[in-house]
Amino acid sequence: MTQAGIAPAARREKIPSEMRALVKERREPGATLTRAPVPEPGPSEVLVRVEAASVCGTDLHIERWDRWAEENFGPTPLVFGHEMAGIVVALGTGVTNVEIGQRVAAETHLVDWTCYQCRTGRAHVCQSLRILGVHVQGTFAEYAVLPATNAWVSDGLPAEVAALQEPLGNAVHAAFVEEIAGQSVAVLGCGPIGLMAIAVARFAGASRIFATDVNPERLALARTMGADLQIDATADVATVIREATDGNGVDVVLEMSGAGPALHQGLAAVANGGRVSLLGTHSRPVTLDLSEQIIFKALRIYGITGRRMFETWYRTSALLREGLDLSPIITHRLPLSRYAEAFDLVASGHAGKVVLLPQEDGR
Amino acid sequence: MTQAGIAPAARREKIPSEMRALVKERREPGATLTRAPVPEPGPSEVLVRVEAASVCGTDLHIERWDRWAEENFGPTPLVFGHEMAGIVVALGTGVTNVEIGQRVAAETHLVDWTCYQCRTGRAHVCQSLRILGVHVQGTFAEYAVLPATNAWVSDGLPAEVAALQEPLGNAVHAAFVEEIAGQSVAVLGCGPIGLMAIAVARFAGASRIFATDVNPERLALARTMGADLQIDATADVATVIREATDGNGVDVVLEMSGAGPALHQGLAAVANGGRVSLLGTHSRPVTLDLSEQIIFKALRIYGITGRRMFETWYRTSALLREGLDLSPIITHRLPLSRYAEAFDLVASGHAGKVVLLPQEDGR
Amino acid sequence: MTQAGIAPAARREKIPSEMRALVKERREPGATLTRAPVPEPGPSEVLVRVEAASVCGTDLHIERWDRWAEENFGPTPLVFGHEMAGIVVALGTGVTNVEIGQRVAAETHLVDWTCYQCRTGRAHVCQSLRILGVHVQGTFAEYAVLPATNAWVSDGLPAEVAALQEPLGNAVHAAFVEEIAGQSVAVLGCGPIGLMAIAVARFAGASRIFATDVNPERLALARTMGADLQIDATADVATVIREATDGNGVDVVLEMSGAGPALHQGLAAVANGGRVSLLGTHSRPVTLDLSEQIIFKALRIYGITGRRMFETWYRTSALLREGLDLSPIITHRLPLSRYAEAFDLVASGHAGKVVLLPQEDGR
Amino acid sequence: MTQAGIAPAARREKIPSEMRALVKERREPGATLTRAPVPEPGPSEVLVRVEAASVCGTDLHIERWDRWAEENFGPTPLVFGHEMAGIVVALGTGVTNVEIGQRVAAETHLVDWTCYQCRTGRAHVCQSLRILGVHVQGTFAEYAVLPATNAWVSDGLPAEVAALQEPLGNAVHAAFVEEIAGQSVAVLGCGPIGLMAIAVARFAGASRIFATDVNPERLALARTMGADLQIDATADVATVIREATDGNGVDVVLEMSGAGPALHQGLAAVANGGRVSLLGTHSRPVTLDLSEQIIFKALRIYGITGRRMFETWYRTSALLREGLDLSPIITHRLPLSRYAEAFDLVASGHAGKVVLLPQEDGR
Repeated sequence: MTQAGIAPAARREKIPSEMRALVKERREPGATLTRAPVPEPGPSEVLVRVEAASVCGTDLHIERWDRWAEENFGPTPLVFGHEMAGIVVALGTGVTNVEIGQRVAAETHLVDWTCYQCRTGRAHVCQSLRILGVHVQGTFAEYAVLPATNAWVSDGLPAEVAALQEPLGNAVHAAFVEEIAGQSVAVLGCGPIGLMAIAVARFAGASRIFATDVNPERLALARTMGADLQIDATADVATVIREATDGNGVDVVLEMSGAGPALHQGLAAVANGGRVSLLGTHSRPVTLDLSEQIIFKALRIYGITGRRMFETWYRTSALLREGLDLSPIITHRLPLSRYAEAFDLVASGHAGKVVLLPQEDGR
Repeated sequence: MTQAGIAPAARREKIPSEMRALVKERREPGATLTRAPVPEPGPSEVLVRVEAASVCGTDLHIERWDRWAEENFGPTPLVFGHEMAGIVVALGTGVTNVEIGQRVAAETHLVDWTCYQCRTGRAHVCQSLRILGVHVQGTFAEYAVLPATNAWVSDGLPAEVAALQEPLGNAVHAAFVEEIAGQSVAVLGCGPIGLMAIAVARFAGASRIFATDVNPERLALARTMGADLQIDATADVATVIREATDGNGVDVVLEMSGAGPALHQGLAAVANGGRVSLLGTHSRPVTLDLSEQIIFKALRIYGITGRRMFETWYRTSALLREGLDLSPIITHRLPLSRYAEAFDLVASGHAGKVVLLPQEDGR
Repeated sequence: MTQAGIAPAARREKIPSEMRALVKERREPGATLTRAPVPEPGPSEVLVRVEAASVCGTDLHIERWDRWAEENFGPTPLVFGHEMAGIVVALGTGVTNVEIGQRVAAETHLVDWTCYQCRTGRAHVCQSLRILGVHVQGTFAEYAVLPATNAWVSDGLPAEVAALQEPLGNAVHAAFVEEIAGQSVAVLGCGPIGLMAIAVARFAGASRIFATDVNPERLALARTMGADLQIDATADVATVIREATDGNGVDVVLEMSGAGPALHQGLAAVANGGRVSLLGTHSRPVTLDLSEQIIFKALRIYGITGRRMFETWYRTSALLREGLDLSPIITHRLPLSRYAEAFDLVASGHAGKVVLLPQEDGR
Repeated sequence: MTQAGIAPAARREKIPSEMRALVKERREPGATLTRAPVPEPGPSEVLVRVEAASVCGTDLHIERWDRWAEENFGPTPLVFGHEMAGIVVALGTGVTNVEIGQRVAAETHLVDWTCYQCRTGRAHVCQSLRILGVHVQGTFAEYAVLPATNAWVSDGLPAEVAALQEPLGNAVHAAFVEEIAGQSVAVLGCGPIGLMAIAVARFAGASRIFATDVNPERLALARTMGADLQIDATADVATVIREATDGNGVDVVLEMSGAGPALHQGLAAVANGGRVSLLGTHSRPVTLDLSEQIIFKALRIYGITGRRMFETWYRTSALLREGLDLSPIITHRLPLSRYAEAFDLVASGHAGKVVLLPQEDGR
């Protein structure tokens, strides 16, 4: 055994010793496409040749280096990126749940499986949570290492769709925290996860679906994904929704924007006794009249982060297998070397999902 | 006020004093189309001009007069029939929730609203439950009286679809007792409610849907309604399902047949930790190995009867409004006078849903 | 029939034509003990001779006349007070669920039973909600009228305990929105409902119970009711709780204080994946970091108002019948004429529950 | 490293090479107390010095060798026994969640953590489930090996109580599958787990608790554990329970007997819309009228096996820590050498729980 932890017999494809990787080298704006050693899988880990790595808003925070990045990212230098799919090319010792040659996607929450939360079905909020590409080496690279437990076998899905299961899982988690069939839904914020949530709600039999955003391009995509009514977020959203729901308001609000005003609209638009999933990351504090906005309306508010491990993944895969179509959301595919363009696209708001393809550059 | 309990000002259409009605006159096989006085709504009741009254398996039991009928029906003489839709033509005193001229469907469970079950969200199993057309005057007639609370406003739906909300509600109740999106489902028995359950599961994002029946015509309808795989119920159903689900079995079984062998198949086909909705009425006892079939598999078994009042109705209406299509299930429409043909069709197994139209005969 | 709506045969005790009642006559601080006609029960209503009427914080708002009162109370003049128990002395027409001579308590939420919420098990947030003693004639009087549906038969309970079922129901609702047995619980705010929540959590098998307040008298009562650890609310509550729970934090937070700082403590003290019931009325806005405090912790936040009608009442009655002891909370019993003293006691924070006894004054 | 998989530095107490163990040597009645090598913990396993090993009904099946044993036990020779507590004396490689010197109890379900059920919160019905002392070496011995994941740290509990957490977990699982506070409960069958269920229900605030058994000694213990009414199981149980519950029936049935007639009583005694936990192992088929007994009553039937891993363990430990008292159930403590007497006691029905103490014999 020349490399610790890798069973040689399991190797089937030639793995180079070096790879290209997008690295955050210093705690400041920017990123560097550089050469780095191909990592080796330790016990219970797998090495994946990355086929597709989509850009998340988090990656933009890291690239642009805002307060969130300052407080959360590191240590540097670190390969970032986390939404991904690829082919398993090597197994560490003790791996039995995946095989070389399988396409896998990454559950990006690395957890300890021993804390209270992990032992009670809430691993996504593990007390020792680390996130791929934020706290440990990520996936904007030709190769990446994952715990085998986090490798979700996705044979049969195209790589770029497989990679999207991670953010789609966020949307599924937010939408299905309670039943959604036959329920009216407002999706606030039509970024990629908001658009996915619209598609999921439509696929799962929601009744009326309302979508809000300030961006007309995104509202047009919302219609494509299945929204019944698109509402400019600068309008009187709650009144529009109440009028369209016999005055009841919506049963379900999916807050995907992270914008305080959107949340206020959602709390005004939701029916008494309804529910609100909070998924969008709020970078600023929000001031609420808890009595009028939540308590006297008997609302249920759900903080949504990550995906249930792995109920959400089974659910998500099943929806894709049955025909849930995310293709309108994938607006751009770029080789890894064009990362700068990718970040600019995401920052511009004129893109849906942007997918980086680490294997597509000439070597 | 010439008729007790009717506010004269609210009358808008001329109501005759007599009507044609299908009556069970004696506790023996058969039924009589006869003339009867148009009933008058008491306090908190409404009078409905019946537009569509579909035939339920229960009606066949009553017409053919089997043991179930002997034990449950009466007193005679009684108009039977209960699945219906029609136009409100008169209001008893104190009615505020419906208006003359509205199309309504009937929630057929008449309940006391004061017992433990009614006061805790389980009115469908009221301790004083009476059923329209079984214990009180039913709806195979030109006019029928309902408690206003049981009149479900259905403006915008065609009458025959509005009438089907009652059995559709059974299917919705059975399917949605837990979440179904992304879950694999076996529907056992493809009579009308089974077919509706397939449509509902498909509409609400179920993953694989398996359908079983002994009747090839019904299996063909199952495919039309959205089943992925139709299985002859005389085959080794559990093995077929397990092979098609990576050996896991299905997450959800909807037992709609009332046949003991189907239930055994379902218990063998369901995944460990899965759930089974029992809706089909079992006329014979079923012998179970509780330990192997239920306990060691950690199953959840739900007895499903009626509809949740009125969560299920809101859910059901919403699905229809969003496009759930039951039209392939309605195979026959007949004037009330052709009731005998209708019962024979239902008995033959060569029909989906048969709808009687009480207003369609010449007077 | 000399009085509209009352069945004369049902009268068993002599009902005077006038009564003493505590009335808010003008939209300003104060209250007036005056003589008023004994009200008559309309259809589906009952007349109750009030035996015990406890003072709620809401009553103090009304008496002192703060912003909440200005925005919510009226019209004047109005008898206020709502927590009560008494003897049914007359029935309006159509009442079948209670009998003359029974002791009843009042569910104080008057609802329409026809709106979306009422028809889907959430009557406590009815769209036409009116509250006894806030929007309609209340119970600080010798007699009061209730909808029969709102009269909860409480034979076997002492009147003052029966009256406390209404606020106890709030506590039960907050505590039991999810299971509490074996869960660690922090009760923030040890006013009467907080104290009741401690008692309920203890009775229902909660594991560690933490109680916070700024008032040492209330913390002493918290211990009496079953708290394991009392924490001065000016201390570093979250750290104390985390240290006492192996660093996990508590499973359940019951926010009963309506104080923003308490909520912040609760959100810091609750375990990832835990739940928070918001019951205390917040008179001021609260500013939250939704991402850190709710979303990344995957919390469930429940707005709690009123009681589930009537699941909570059955639950509440059952707990009292099995021995749940509220007697330490009832610190003062006063005749109605000493209402001013009662309000001062409540305002002082040196009282638990203060019960007014409308029948105890000389006439 | 002289023993594969054991970190030498972690060893603190001298471990002999041989131990006494109770072995099923042949597939026939009986058991043999013999000398066997002390097992060695493999990777991710721990070695435990067994302090207490209580006798389960399953052990009696194995010792007496009935049909269940024939179909499930093996391979032979095998140490049997599974309910246990002891001190960790050696760690296999990679163990981080327990330490040498800690007292642990055993979760007896050995699972693969990779199947559908294990990855969706239902490990207790793992597709590759093996049970300690049934399929792999058990705990009626001086030492036993466990997967570290299955070792539940129980410092602070006496060994015999720690051992009882496993069956107590069954009772907790059955009782808490839905909320139980304020609910009326019938516990059918007062063997050890039934008695524990009574204690749990009482501790968690159940309202009326009914207990049935044919054995007066057990009924007396049921009273000790907190039952309100003990009913001879040969009486008309359902009528007695209905009369004691205002005709409603009980909210919850916990079927702990495995006896068909008890289940029939339970189904007759449970309220419409109530729930039934099936835990007792039924060795014979049971014939049910599904329509009348389950469907038309809208019951929820839960198959209960094992414990939720590890929600139930947290819950169970918390209840014990808060004072749940099982001591009346432990009627006998015997050294391992008196195993034959232990089995006879269990078989006689004149014992509660019998605990074997493997360290108590002279060496």
